[in-house]
Amino acid sequence: MKPFLIQAYGTPGSATNATNTLAPMQIERQPPAADQVLIEVLYCGVCHSDLHQVRNDWQNTIYPCVPGHEVVGRVIETGADVTQVAAGDLVGVGCMIDSCGHCASCREGDEQYCEGPVGWTGTYNGYLMPDGSGFNTYGGYSTHLVVRDAFVVPIPAGLSPQEAAPILCAGVTVWSPLKHWQIGTGHHIAVVGLGGLGHMAVQLARARGARVTVLTTSADKEADALGLGADAVVLSTDRAAMRLHTRAFDFILTTIPDPFNVAPYLNLLKRNGVLITVGLLVDYERALSNQKLAFHRRSVAGSLIGSIAETREVLQFCADHGIRPEIEVIPMQQINGAFDTLKAGDVRFRYVIDMQSLKA
Amino acid sequence: MKPFLIQAYGTPGSATNATNTLAPMQIERQPPAADQVLIEVLYCGVCHSDLHQVRNDWQNTIYPCVPGHEVVGRVIETGADVTQVAAGDLVGVGCMIDSCGHCASCREGDEQYCEGPVGWTGTYNGYLMPDGSGFNTYGGYSTHLVVRDAFVVPIPAGLSPQEAAPILCAGVTVWSPLKHWQIGTGHHIAVVGLGGLGHMAVQLARARGARVTVLTTSADKEADALGLGADAVVLSTDRAAMRLHTRAFDFILTTIPDPFNVAPYLNLLKRNGVLITVGLLVDYERALSNQKLAFHRRSVAGSLIGSIAETREVLQFCADHGIRPEIEVIPMQQINGAFDTLKAGDVRFRYVIDMQSLKA
Repeated sequence: MKPFLIQAYGTPGSATNATNTLAPMQIERQPPAADQVLIEVLYCGVCHSDLHQVRNDWQNTIYPCVPGHEVVGRVIETGADVTQVAAGDLVGVGCMIDSCGHCASCREGDEQYCEGPVGWTGTYNGYLMPDGSGFNTYGGYSTHLVVRDAFVVPIPAGLSPQEAAPILCAGVTVWSPLKHWQIGTGHHIAVVGLGGLGHMAVQLARARGARVTVLTTSADKEADALGLGADAVVLSTDRAAMRLHTRAFDFILTTIPDPFNVAPYLNLLKRNGVLITVGLLVDYERALSNQKLAFHRRSVAGSLIGSIAETREVLQFCADHGIRPEIEVIPMQQINGAFDTLKAGDVRFRYVIDMQSLKA
Repeated sequence: MKPFLIQAYGTPGSATNATNTLAPMQIERQPPAADQVLIEVLYCGVCHSDLHQVRNDWQNTIYPCVPGHEVVGRVIETGADVTQVAAGDLVGVGCMIDSCGHCASCREGDEQYCEGPVGWTGTYNGYLMPDGSGFNTYGGYSTHLVVRDAFVVPIPAGLSPQEAAPILCAGVTVWSPLKHWQIGTGHHIAVVGLGGLGHMAVQLARARGARVTVLTTSADKEADALGLGADAVVLSTDRAAMRLHTRAFDFILTTIPDPFNVAPYLNLLKRNGVLITVGLLVDYERALSNQKLAFHRRSVAGSLIGSIAETREVLQFCADHGIRPEIEVIPMQQINGAFDTLKAGDVRFRYVIDMQSLKA
């Protein structure tokens, strides 16, 4: 089998001449190597990171850029050494398609913290070395994907392919810190932001036994939050309401995708409380006060996506507990409008692209 | 017994007319209440906080200000209900002389995180409410101190009174995070700064079994650090040396008393590593990067002094392990020069005031 051309949606251009809209393009895929599988993409979730990457918010975008790392598809071919997955299987691919496999993090099943020379390989945007070398990878906004078998996870029975898609990034990104900090029964957690990540965090934390309060700037998200199982909702712009929650939470999980001021949230942490930020890969808005940290031995932590084991686990947990992302299925052709809506912060569900639209 | 006047060293003036030098003054002490003890001060350590408070660096100084919270003295009178301490006992008083006693933190023996309406009562600078009410307390730069019995700790046999003094703040401030994060055998910890706190941290961490690297801006402190038991010393201004320690440490304990940039230190933390800042009650110098946190699930935490139980414990630990602060005993009259030296960051020991000089 030779390299082959497939349909995708991406931004052409170069780092110095980036375009911010996605358009149809053809990309080349390599045939699967011995340890790889070829997947026909059925659905792909739309993550805020896709938008950041396309718009070069992290100053590291390699163009052309084809985003998409919440991929659900069907295996159509496997390499000679692949034993865990077979043609016809419904599988998922999240943010990673490879990692070094040798470092302590990889050996201990924390591939998302790979300490290899270039870290893990992203499903899109590959990697770029400081010297400009490296290679690009193209994500799931495409008809086909080729991935190492170890980075492919089965979609459990009971989850529809379109609903499973957002669990592969949004779901595992909030699941991983819930697991790592053992957040559950007996804890009161605040989830900040009720978008793609936040609405999964509310459901997952609730199912783990935690009391959940949603902090949001959108008054009209209250009913949604309560509907998802939140015990309470606090408008974070209401200073009096925020003050009433001084030292109320054991944990705060923030899913705000843009720089924000941590200070008003720190006040809400109990002694030994931890504020965990996911989905933000830039600086906070202001310098942190060590006074706010020290006076109640609080911590500020970051967490990055989740491991492959955690991805399998959260998919099964969702299947077992009837947890579903709220999704709106769109055709590939509507992606630029979806990005604009996402950027405006006005989303209370996850867009999922039906990749049949690209094949039409 | 009536209120009585004693000799002290403090700054007169008011919040709007602060003086930055200390001078002899007389202050009034109340006779011990039923649960209090009257202590004749023998020695008092000089803490960087004394300097911060006198110079109103935290914008909360109540004048006149008499600093001193590393007090070792002899009990000369006890209130009617005091049973744990008797006249003649050699005792220590650290940063706190009272707390609410009712909140979760107090009940659980974490008085330093008292959640009462005004928190714990400082040995000096009492407290000031936002409405301007409250009261002032005067510290150990004085001949006598009156303290609630529960906040008095015995000085174990084997520690001289002058050497015990700095353990009451500097010692317990670094001991508390070593205990809380269970730092010891199998861990590699970096201690940033080799002043009063840092030089205790090196010895204590070493005695707990940790591998210790000192990060310092002072090349001439290398021999001191190694002499205290450090396994290695890195000049934090040497970017190449710092880069060699990328992801080298499980914990970083920073004792830098002024705002600093956390970023170069975060790079040195392993996956799941924690940077703990003590002795800094203001903002860091720059906004924190959540990228640096998230990519290896790092945390930034603050820790504040230590509990009464931890104070007893660290005194005994020092006595048992032959750990001593390096001190220079000075008369009270040399305090302003000592402050200047401290401010210049040029101290590799702890000044301890011999309070006989004040009685002369």
